[in-house]
Amino acid sequence: MNKHVVLLPGDGIGKEVMESARLVLEAVAERNGHRFTFEEKLIGGAAIDEQGDPLPRETVEAAEKADAVLLGAVGGPSWDHLPGSGRPEQGLLGIRKQLGLFANLRPVKGFRQLLHASPLKKEVVEGSDLLIVRELTGGLYFGEPQERSEDGEGVVDTLSYSRKEIERIVEQGFESARKRRKQLTSVDKANVLESSRMWREIVEEKSADYPDVKVDHMLVDAAAMKLVTDPTYFDVVVTENMFGDILSDEASVLTGSLGLLPSASLREDGTGLYEPVHGSAPDIAGEDKANPLAMILSAAMMLKHSFHMEKEAEHIEKAVQEVLDAGYHTADLSVVNGTELGCTDLTRKVIEQITSED
Amino acid sequence: MNKHVVLLPGDGIGKEVMESARLVLEAVAERNGHRFTFEEKLIGGAAIDEQGDPLPRETVEAAEKADAVLLGAVGGPSWDHLPGSGRPEQGLLGIRKQLGLFANLRPVKGFRQLLHASPLKKEVVEGSDLLIVRELTGGLYFGEPQERSEDGEGVVDTLSYSRKEIERIVEQGFESARKRRKQLTSVDKANVLESSRMWREIVEEKSADYPDVKVDHMLVDAAAMKLVTDPTYFDVVVTENMFGDILSDEASVLTGSLGLLPSASLREDGTGLYEPVHGSAPDIAGEDKANPLAMILSAAMMLKHSFHMEKEAEHIEKAVQEVLDAGYHTADLSVVNGTELGCTDLTRKVIEQITSED
Ligand SMILES: CC(C)[C@H](C(=O)O)[C@@H](O)C(=O)O
Ligand SMILES: CC(C)[C@H](C(=O)O)[C@@H](O)C(=O)O
Repeated sequence: MNKHVVLLPGDGIGKEVMESARLVLEAVAERNGHRFTFEEKLIGGAAIDEQGDPLPRETVEAAEKADAVLLGAVGGPSWDHLPGSGRPEQGLLGIRKQLGLFANLRPVKGFRQLLHASPLKKEVVEGSDLLIVRELTGGLYFGEPQERSEDGEGVVDTLSYSRKEIERIVEQGFESARKRRKQLTSVDKANVLESSRMWREIVEEKSADYPDVKVDHMLVDAAAMKLVTDPTYFDVVVTENMFGDILSDEASVLTGSLGLLPSASLREDGTGLYEPVHGSAPDIAGEDKANPLAMILSAAMMLKHSFHMEKEAEHIEKAVQEVLDAGYHTADLSVVNGTELGCTDLTRKVIEQITSED
Repeated sequence: MNKHVVLLPGDGIGKEVMESARLVLEAVAERNGHRFTFEEKLIGGAAIDEQGDPLPRETVEAAEKADAVLLGAVGGPSWDHLPGSGRPEQGLLGIRKQLGLFANLRPVKGFRQLLHASPLKKEVVEGSDLLIVRELTGGLYFGEPQERSEDGEGVVDTLSYSRKEIERIVEQGFESARKRRKQLTSVDKANVLESSRMWREIVEEKSADYPDVKVDHMLVDAAAMKLVTDPTYFDVVVTENMFGDILSDEASVLTGSLGLLPSASLREDGTGLYEPVHGSAPDIAGEDKANPLAMILSAAMMLKHSFHMEKEAEHIEKAVQEVLDAGYHTADLSVVNGTELGCTDLTRKVIEQITSED
């Protein structure tokens, strides 16, 4: 298959880990007779520096035409003084909205080698394997009005959803659950918010179409507790944008594997943007110390979700697991009795696995 | 001093633990020459059953006239079938709003005897001692509009704040920090919400009045991570209503002491409503198994915050600590080599400590 991928390295270690993902994808293409073409564009701080805009129009245009988009990371202290509307994160918020990437999928899994780095007790966290499905283009993030009153004495943000927006993310939650352990937890605040009450109704309606999926409802405050006390309870969690932002970050630190977590942001037609959960780590940028594995696993998610290359995605995941099993890691991960490598060398190890697998 | 306290036992174990608090307060009054009078009123499910309203008018009127209010817990499965607006929690939301209880103080501390019950590793959680100051009568909970569109295809909730509402809670945060370790973390989502940007500005303005307090700003998603990975980082956290709801519940499970956590909800004039963080535990209601300590510690918070009886509050806190040190506990707490008691007997132990202290 021929696939065209737009690369948005962004800032900090984004550039290095993107190069790793590209090399891994080329190895996969070579081995499986695919052809991936790549086109690099600016986003975030890098785009502000070169074009005065965190999301240049040509970036959006290229992304629109691509089969999928990979993103490294955005942000860093050099842009912290800028006003809200001109900051690197606006590039991220903007591309999500403009491409219609309504469904953010964030899998959280514990890698055996890293479980000891979890803040949780082993018996609490062991076996955790959950997926947060977060609505990404609606709710409190984008509702209007979002403004101060004229006299500056009041301020308002708006949490708004259309029925269709809730339906499609809830469907995504059910579809994801069907492919996993068939348990969907819908998280809301139905005892306070009208939007949550509508959300809950829609989950109930849709559940009729998914009799094989077991559904429960949990209040967001209870979910924030249960993620810490009993993370293995969860299979798939579906929730609105702001709750998803908070809960997915909370979940990301549970297993000690933050440096390994990928994410996907999907559009209705299956196109998507894939990025690691970690940030731009400006303190180690350019030193060949970055951990490329979350970016590489994000590329694997792209193969699976946008290109339907399940087998190839599994090759990558298996290669990463084998490299970890062999004790190789970057400086950010504390692996007991492991061998520390730089970004380039760790990437090479992954590629060696891919080309040698049978 | 003469003080008049309205008791709102509410539902489930609320009745039992309220009786414990009353007995403890009487012991404190006796010992210190105060006179507390008590008046019991209905709220929540109990009020629905007797008067068809989770917050009868006479409850609000009595609370308005009281020097302080103690609340047990509301809710339970018998009322789960009711529509949102008629449910027990509405009593709680209603009394907060009608009494103007804008500041919710939730201290989270680890009791030595219970640290082993924490989901976190000992080295992560040990020494945690933080206070969440949550705005309680504004934001997403009470903003208008909160409604469906006429055709039922859309829904909206509103996060709104006036400058004054933000100022008074931020001041409360600074005041609380000044009485503790002088470190205030303001939590917002300033990279997305306009209300958060205004919030951050106000924190910056007010910090000029509190040069002795060190302030930092943290995004809510980062705070949700840091509470788990590094809870000892925090002293006082100040945040808006919904973020506070989520983060304070997340924080409440960190130390293994959920059954011991009290809370205060304060009005500008210092009157307040005090309640345990735990719920109504309908499964054990009426069996003399309830843990009264969080309710008793809530009464101690009342003495401190509404009656300025610091010494008396410390007596209660010390008595509770000593009862735990002696190994006494209820069935919900797993204390190693402890002695399990019922609600009545554990309360008696606390009172014995209070009357014997010197
Ligand atoms: C950078 C920020 C605007 C963004 C968000 O809140 O969505 C980030 O926290 C995320 O979760 O991807
Ligand atoms: C019962 C509910 C409405 C309430 C809230 O969300 O404020 C509760 O969770 C709390 O934190 O006191």
